[in-house]
Amino acid sequence: MTNAKQPLALVAGGAGFIGSHLCAALLDRGFSVLCLDNLQTSRPVNVENLARHQGFHFIKADITAPLPRTVLDRSDAITRIYNLACAASPPQYQADPEHTMLTNVLGTDRLLRLAERSGARFLLTSTSEVYGDPETHPQKEDYRGWVNCTGPRACYDEGKRAAEAMSFDFARLGRADVRVARIFNTYGPHMHPDDGRVVSNLICQALSGRDITIYGDGSQTRSFCYVSDMVDGLIRLMETDGLPSAPINLGNPEEYSVNELLEQILGLVETSGETVYRPLPVDDPRRRRPDIASARRWLGWAPQVPLADGLASTCDWFAAELGCSGLAASGAGARRTMPLAAVR
Amino acid sequence: MTNAKQPLALVAGGAGFIGSHLCAALLDRGFSVLCLDNLQTSRPVNVENLARHQGFHFIKADITAPLPRTVLDRSDAITRIYNLACAASPPQYQADPEHTMLTNVLGTDRLLRLAERSGARFLLTSTSEVYGDPETHPQKEDYRGWVNCTGPRACYDEGKRAAEAMSFDFARLGRADVRVARIFNTYGPHMHPDDGRVVSNLICQALSGRDITIYGDGSQTRSFCYVSDMVDGLIRLMETDGLPSAPINLGNPEEYSVNELLEQILGLVETSGETVYRPLPVDDPRRRRPDIASARRWLGWAPQVPLADGLASTCDWFAAELGCSGLAASGAGARRTMPLAAVR
Repeated sequence: MTNAKQPLALVAGGAGFIGSHLCAALLDRGFSVLCLDNLQTSRPVNVENLARHQGFHFIKADITAPLPRTVLDRSDAITRIYNLACAASPPQYQADPEHTMLTNVLGTDRLLRLAERSGARFLLTSTSEVYGDPETHPQKEDYRGWVNCTGPRACYDEGKRAAEAMSFDFARLGRADVRVARIFNTYGPHMHPDDGRVVSNLICQALSGRDITIYGDGSQTRSFCYVSDMVDGLIRLMETDGLPSAPINLGNPEEYSVNELLEQILGLVETSGETVYRPLPVDDPRRRRPDIASARRWLGWAPQVPLADGLASTCDWFAAELGCSGLAASGAGARRTMPLAAVR
Repeated sequence: MTNAKQPLALVAGGAGFIGSHLCAALLDRGFSVLCLDNLQTSRPVNVENLARHQGFHFIKADITAPLPRTVLDRSDAITRIYNLACAASPPQYQADPEHTMLTNVLGTDRLLRLAERSGARFLLTSTSEVYGDPETHPQKEDYRGWVNCTGPRACYDEGKRAAEAMSFDFARLGRADVRVARIFNTYGPHMHPDDGRVVSNLICQALSGRDITIYGDGSQTRSFCYVSDMVDGLIRLMETDGLPSAPINLGNPEEYSVNELLEQILGLVETSGETVYRPLPVDDPRRRRPDIASARRWLGWAPQVPLADGLASTCDWFAAELGCSGLAASGAGARRTMPLAAVR
C-alpha cells in the first residue's frame, strides 16, 4: 500500500497515567506520536524517557482551547486520535468542575472535528462512571446507568456521557470513524501518588507508614485492571475493523472488595500504619464490575495480568518513586519478574 | 431600596415558544428584557408585538459563540438570566446534534459566567428528558433517569443533564445563584407548527385536513401544561428566596394518552383527515408525568388551566396562524373566553 499514510497518532492526555503507557506502546508498534497534555494532573516525568524517541513529540496544550497550530498543521498526516484527556480522580476533577465538563464536551468536540478534518480514527476513553452507582451487576454496555446529574461527581460522569453522545453523533452522521471505550478501574506505574484513588492511596499510605484510610466499611467492590492490559485493549479497539457502533467495556471482571485489596497490598508492603475507616464520599458507587463479553467477542481481549503480579509491580514502582523501603521480603521486590514492556 | 438595580432580565431563547411568553410576562411585571435568540427554531413573529415595548430589546445571537458586546456592556445591570435556549423537539435538535450539545453545555457555561460576573440570578430550563424513558411513575426530582447516552436523543437529553451539572457546580462554588426547572410537555400559542411535537402535530394535521399521525398505538401517556402556567412557574422559581439547591419539576401532573389528546382535539376541530399509526421513534419515552410536590411546596405553584381550555386557545391560535377554518361550532371558536395575558 504505497499510498497509505505513515501511522501518526495524536494522544490527548498522553502524559497521564494510562496515556503515557499508551504513547510508549504506540511507539513500540511503529507509530509516531503527538502527545498533547495540559499537565494539569499528569507529570512530564511520565514521558521523559519517551522524549528521546525520534517519533515522539510533546505539545503542552489544553483541549478546551483551540488546538495549537502545530497540531492543525499536521492534521492531514494524523491517522489515529486517542482522547484520554481529563482528570480522572474525584478530588482532581472536582477541583475545577467547569474545566472538567468543558474538557469532556468542548475538548472532545475539538478532537472529533480534527478527526473529521484529517480522516483519522477517533477513540474516546469513556468510563465506568457513566454507569453511576449501578443497580445491575456486572454492568453491560446497554445498562443506562444510575447517575446523579446534579451531584459533585456529575462534572465528570455527565461530561463523559455527553462526550459519548457527541462521539456517536459524529459516527451516525458519517463525520468520523469513532470508537468508545468505557474504562473501569486501572492501576499500575505512573499513577499519581496523590490522585485519591484506592490503589494508589493504599499503596502510598502503606509505603509511607501513615494511617491507611478506608472509605466506608471496605466491603464495596471494585475491579482492577493492570495498565498494560488496558493499553492493549485500547489499541485493539482502535485497530479492529467491522465493529458495531457501540461503546465497549474494558476492565478486569475479577471483583475484589477494598478490604481484600488492602490485604494483598499488606502482603507486599511492611507498614507501621493503622487502618482507619472514614465515611463514604457522596455518590461513591457501592459496586462496579465490567461485563466484558463484548470486548472478548469483538476484540479477542481479556485481561492477562493477575492482581498479585500487577500490585507487585505497582508497589515496586511507587517504592522507587517515593524513595521508600518497606517492601516485604516475600513481596514485590522478590517477584519483579513480570514483563512490563510498556513501563520505561 | 434606593440602591436596588432596576430589574433587567436576559432571556436566552426569548423568541421561542415559551421564551416569547416569558418575555411578555416579564415586561408585564416591570422588567426590561434583553431577548437573545439565534432564530434557529424560533420565529421573529413571536416577539413582534413586544418590539414596540420600550423595555424590550432583541439581539440575534447564538450562545455557542462568545456573548455579544451589547450584552457584556450591560452585564452589570442584568439582574435575572433565564436560559431557555435550545431547540426542543427531536427533529429540530437532531438536525445538528453537535450544535444542540454545545448550546446546552458551552452556551449554559457562557450564561453562568455572565451570571457570576453580573451577580444576576440564573435559571436553567432543563427538561423531563433528563428522566429518559422512566422506570418510575410519576417522576420525582431525585429519580436519576433512564437515558440512553449513545442514542439519537442523547445530544439533547445528555446536553441538558450536563447543563444541570454545570449549574449546580456554579451554585456549590458560590459562583452564581442558580435555579433549575425540569419542564414537562408544554403547549399553547407560538408553538412551531412543524416542530414535530404531539400537540402541534395533531392540531395542525387536523386543521389542515391531512392524515393524523399517531406514533405507536397512542397508548403512551404525556402530561400537557399550558404555557401561561409554565411561565408563572418559571417566574416563581426565579423570584422565590430560600429554595433548596435542587431541580424542580414544572409540568401538569394530569396524564392523558395520546389517543385521549386526539379525541379532545377532534372535539374542537372538524377534520377530514384519517388517523394513521406509525412506528414509535427510537428511545421515545412510553410514559411521563411530573411529581410536582416540590413546586407546590416551595413555589406554591400548580397548573391552573384545564386541558380543554388550553387546547381551545391553542387551536384558535393555530387556525389563525395557518389561515384555516375548520373549528367546530362547539369548539374553540365558541369558547375563547379564557384570559391569556401572556399571549399578545
